[in-house]
This record gives sequence, structure tokens and C-alpha cells, in this order.
Amino acid sequence: MAEFVRLGIIGIGNQGSGYARHLTQDGWCPEIKLTAIADKNPARVEWAKNTLPEDVTCFDNAIDMLDSGLIDACVVSIPHYDHPKYVMECMKRGIHVMCEKPAGVYTKQVREMNEEAKKHPEVVFGMMFNQRTDCLYRKMRELVQSGKYGRIRRTNWIITNWFRSEAYYRSGGWRAPWAGEGGGVLFNQCPHNIDLFQWICGMPTAVTAIGGLGKYHDIEVEDDCTALFEYENGATGVFVTTTGEAPGTNRLEIIGDRGKLVNEGGKLTFTRNEIPADVFNKTTPNSFGRPEVWDIDIPVNGNGEQHNGIRKNFVNAILKGEKLIAPAEEGIKSVEMANAMLYSLMTGKRVELPLDAAMYEEHLKKLIANSRFVKKDEVKAGVDMGKSF
Amino acid sequence: MAEFVRLGIIGIGNQGSGYARHLTQDGWCPEIKLTAIADKNPARVEWAKNTLPEDVTCFDNAIDMLDSGLIDACVVSIPHYDHPKYVMECMKRGIHVMCEKPAGVYTKQVREMNEEAKKHPEVVFGMMFNQRTDCLYRKMRELVQSGKYGRIRRTNWIITNWFRSEAYYRSGGWRAPWAGEGGGVLFNQCPHNIDLFQWICGMPTAVTAIGGLGKYHDIEVEDDCTALFEYENGATGVFVTTTGEAPGTNRLEIIGDRGKLVNEGGKLTFTRNEIPADVFNKTTPNSFGRPEVWDIDIPVNGNGEQHNGIRKNFVNAILKGEKLIAPAEEGIKSVEMANAMLYSLMTGKRVELPLDAAMYEEHLKKLIANSRFVKKDEVKAGVDMGKSF
Repeated sequence: MAEFVRLGIIGIGNQGSGYARHLTQDGWCPEIKLTAIADKNPARVEWAKNTLPEDVTCFDNAIDMLDSGLIDACVVSIPHYDHPKYVMECMKRGIHVMCEKPAGVYTKQVREMNEEAKKHPEVVFGMMFNQRTDCLYRKMRELVQSGKYGRIRRTNWIITNWFRSEAYYRSGGWRAPWAGEGGGVLFNQCPHNIDLFQWICGMPTAVTAIGGLGKYHDIEVEDDCTALFEYENGATGVFVTTTGEAPGTNRLEIIGDRGKLVNEGGKLTFTRNEIPADVFNKTTPNSFGRPEVWDIDIPVNGNGEQHNGIRKNFVNAILKGEKLIAPAEEGIKSVEMANAMLYSLMTGKRVELPLDAAMYEEHLKKLIANSRFVKKDEVKAGVDMGKSF
Repeated sequence: MAEFVRLGIIGIGNQGSGYARHLTQDGWCPEIKLTAIADKNPARVEWAKNTLPEDVTCFDNAIDMLDSGLIDACVVSIPHYDHPKYVMECMKRGIHVMCEKPAGVYTKQVREMNEEAKKHPEVVFGMMFNQRTDCLYRKMRELVQSGKYGRIRRTNWIITNWFRSEAYYRSGGWRAPWAGEGGGVLFNQCPHNIDLFQWICGMPTAVTAIGGLGKYHDIEVEDDCTALFEYENGATGVFVTTTGEAPGTNRLEIIGDRGKLVNEGGKLTFTRNEIPADVFNKTTPNSFGRPEVWDIDIPVNGNGEQHNGIRKNFVNAILKGEKLIAPAEEGIKSVEMANAMLYSLMTGKRVELPLDAAMYEEHLKKLIANSRFVKKDEVKAGVDMGKSF
């Protein structure tokens, strides 16, 4: 068995160049040896040649890198639309692949990617859901999924600390037009949160959203969304996000029969009903009574290993068969939720899940066709690998 | 000018009997002299005769009390449907009137009451919105309404600490059927919160709600509601309430350009942007920057005088022309919001405000006509003054 994995990176933009530096300069994850990068943007390739060690081969074309025999695994770190396309190119060559979030922009393309993945069970296919390593979210999931916490009754995530300035949106030409990212805060900033939400609480069965397109910024996509969730067991939920608010809030509250879990300000608290609410409700003779509670601060050990934790897990999955923290097939769930929220927000309709993938693709195509977006600056980072449609 | 006000109370149920005790035994509000009570329930009248001072005259009919010449002012503390009817009976006799919340069950009847009020400018007409005396809410309103806080961008009130047991709903026959209260948590528990919400942040222009009828209890009305609000300036909001949850949350967050106000756990905090978010957004050259903030704990002096504060204010309005804290004409706003939320929750439709009052009355009439509610216990408290329809 190999002692290390030879890695390539497609796309040396903000994220990809950071990975390359961490792996070659900062000594992160010694089981990974960066052997190649590919980027269509000549300036980026030049940067890589000047900055990365000599034994990293630089390509101006991703397919050439995949065909070079220099890599066993690949990170796909390019604009969202092309994630599925290049992930599938990796799989077809038996190259293990780590996909940046989101899995794609619309479920139809992600479904195709997942179908391809089924044909290649030998390929390790991970998603960079680094926040799944965060100890607070892991603990919340453990408590909720254990069942000890009772049936979920209500969820509420206010995650509005994603403030982005106009300068941010002007800094990359692919940011925020329909043809570039295919969406705004739900597709760029929130995939982590949406994934965590479904990872901890499960998928909703219906979504109703309000918000705005370009409400706070000169962009054509959504920068504000507030959504109602309905769950199969009758529970309800709320998800609030925006890039237009400062200082913003990050507060996740989950109510079960057994009490209330709140994750806010880096702290996890559990207010535990000594008698579960549903039992107390039916048994107390007291009109105005309520269950006694314990206030519990749950100790957690920081934010976890984040990106490097996912990278280590990916390489251990390849070398040792370790179970993936974020199997990439699960990436479709957050894409579907984002699609549903955006569709509801734009049409004023309640959207039932699973979403009609063909309908959503049509919706998105129309948005692209009618786009009035004009690039104000040159693309400064990232690689445009050609649009999917 | 009189030195005190002679007060009557219609309805000596839980609330009315409490008032009577406070005024006659606890020495609250010496400017009020309780001179009469009326209740249709013989057991309650008996209780009053045995408990209250001899100079309090007890009637088994409200109209007789209003015509007796014994009172200058009256508290209407009976089931919701009949609030407007008896308030108008007071006004027609020039009797000042304090109405319990809610102002009524549906806007049409409250509108009629407000029309009658216009004909009697000499009558002081107050609403028992005692939470308007709470120092935290007063301070929030002051900050928001002053404009110093900037334009409102987002509101979010999770007010789910209204847990009520099955025993509660069994304890009073008028509780929770369509013909009794005309609604559940939005009409009994939440009128205060809904009033405060509009008092601080203004009225929404549209409402979309989900939730459930008898979701947690054996009742036919709503005991769970989560609503999206849209405001005229483009701001969005969330309102979450239920009587089915323990321990519950009471957290009100209001975001303005200038920062974030949070009222939770009896504490008011203001995270203040040194540069308003909208200005910073357009002027910073930094993609990932955000305004610097001050964390400010706002000192407030407890919960205020509550019911007695409203009573004192009412009597001072009568005796000295003091401005009312809760002019009763404003009671229609929380009724309209409750109507809109319930209608949206039941129909799945987004509801624009102002609500169509005739349509809502029709909706409610149908619910009453189709009611399957069967009383499980006798009415133990309160007075049934005859249904409005």
C-alpha cells in the first residue's frame, strides 16, 4: 500500500492556492504529496510555477493533468457549475476526488454526478464540508441523532454573520451572476450551514421562503433569505441568512421533547426537561405547570480540524479505508434545499421536496438567458473551465 | 374634579377576580374605588359577595351595572368575542372603559368598536397591554423609533415559553374552541407579544405562516405558529410561538443598519456598528471586512409596573388627562396580525395586510359552523355573556 497520496488541484484561485500553500509550505497532512496543479488562467499558472516546489507540475488544462498519470487523487476547486463535470472526469479515470462545496448548482447535474459515482465504487469521493468537523455541530448531531433528546419539534437557525461588501462582489467576475454562481448567499456562503442543518436535523419536506435579489448589493442573485421548513414528523423550522447584515447572528436552536439545544457564541447549552414535554403535557394536573429543567453547559473542544480534518479523513479513506466524514453523495441534499429556497423566494410558492429537478433547471436557464449582469472587473482569481450550458 | 374613579368590573373570572382583590385588599391604585362587579355565573357572584367589601354592589347582569349610576369606569374582562360588545355598551353610557386583550377576535368587530369610540371622544378607552410598561420593551421601542438605530432590516421573535398543558385546556370550557376563543395561542397567549412587536417595529405588509391546529393538544384551534413577515421598507421578520414547547424561548432580535438589539433572558444587548452597515457596505475597499462593533449592555430597570402601571395610567387619563400608554384603538393591529397568521396557516396562502375583514369573518363563521368541539368539563370560571353570533 502506498504511504502517501499524489494529489492534483484543479483551480488555483483563492481556495486552491491556499490548499497548495498549506500542503507544500505549512507541512499539513504529510500523507498528501502535491504533485500537480491545473488552471486555465495563465497568471495563476505563473504564480504556481514561481511559488510552489519544482516537483509540482503545472498544467494549463485540467484534462491533461488528469491524463498525466501524476496524480492518484484530485481536488476540484473551481466555480460551482463545473464541479460535477470535473468530478466525473476524475472518476472516469479512477482518480479519487475531493469536491469543493457546493456539489453543484442544480440537482440535475449533481444527480448525474452521483450516478457516475455509483459506477466507480473504488473511487473515494469526498465533499469539503469542513464544518462537519466542528465539535459543537458534531455534538449537536450526536445528541439529536441518538434519540435521547426526543422527537424534534422545532428548529431555528439564524446565520446572518456572512456580511459581504460591494467590494467583495466586484472582486471576482464569476461571483453573483446567474451564469457565474447560479445563486448568491445560498450557493456561496451557506452550503456549509445548509449541509449541517440537514446533517443534524434531517431534510425538510417543504420550504417557503422570502428575501431579495440584490437587496443589499448591486448583484442579480439573492443576498437575503428567510425560509420556513416543514418536516415529515410535523416539526417546523426557520432558516435565516443574508450577506447584507452586520454584525450578524449565528444562533442554532433545536427543540426536542427532552429540551432545548442552543449553539451561539461558540457555546453549546442544553436546557433539559426532567420529564419530556410530551409526557408532562398529558400527565400534569396543573394548568400552568411546566417541566423542571436542568441548565447544562456542554463542554466541547473548539472548532475541530476543519479543512485539514477533512483532508486527513480523505487521505485515510484512500489509504486505510477510513469512513468519510462527508461522503460527497450527500452534497445533493444542500443543493436541493438551496434550490428550493431560491425557487420559493422568487416565485412566492411553497415548494415540496424532493424538488422537480427538470423544472428547476428550466428556471435557472431562463434566469441565465435573461441575465442583465455586466462584469465590472476582470476575473482576478479562479478558473473558468467553460460553462456547463 | 373627582379625587377617585368609581370602577366596575364585568367578568369576575381568573383575571377579573384578581383585579378585584388587588384593588380592595392589596391597596393597589388608591385613586380607584371598586364599587360594583357583574357576572352571569351565580357561583362567581356568590364568591364576590362573600369576598369583596360590602360596599361593592354585585350584579348578575352587566347592563344593569352599567345603568346603575354606580360606576364612572369599567373593566371588561370576559371571553374575547364579547369585548367589543360590552366596550360599546360602556361608551354609549359615557363610561370610561379598560378592555382586556385582545380587542376582539376578528377585525370587523374591532373596527365597529373603534368607530363607536370616535363618537365618544370624552370616554377614556384603554387596552390592558400591560407589557408595554416593561422597561426592556420600552427601551427597544425608544431605540428603534428614535431613528438613531437606522432603518430596520430584520426582526425575529421566538416567543415559545407559553407552555400550556392538556389540563389547562380542559379547565375552561370557552378555551380553545372556535366558538369560544376564536383561536388559540395567537388569540389567548400572544396578543401582548404581537402588540409589542408592531408597537416596536411597525406593522408588516404581508404574512405567511405555517403551524398546526391541535398539534400538541386535544383542541381544534392553533397551538403552534411560525410566520414570515414582510415590511414596507423591504425588511423581513419571523415570529414563532407555541403552547406545546418546554422550556421554550423568549428572544427578540431586531437588526438595524446601526447594529443588533437582542432581548433575551431579561437582558437587553446592543451590538453597535461604528459605521452603519449600509454605509460600510458601499465604502469599504475590503472584500471580507465588516464594521467594528461596540458590545453594549443596556441598563434597564426591571419589568415595569405591568397591570398596575396600566391601571394607574388609565385612572390618571380620566382624572388628569394623562396620555394613555395603550390607547385601545391600537388593539386592532394585533387582532389583524393574529387573523392574518391564522388564515395563512390554515390556507397555505400568503396574506397581504390590511386583511379583508369580511372574508376573515366568513372564514371564522365556517369554522364555528363546522366545529366538532365537545366540552369535556363545565365552565369553571368566566362569564358567558351570550355569543356575538
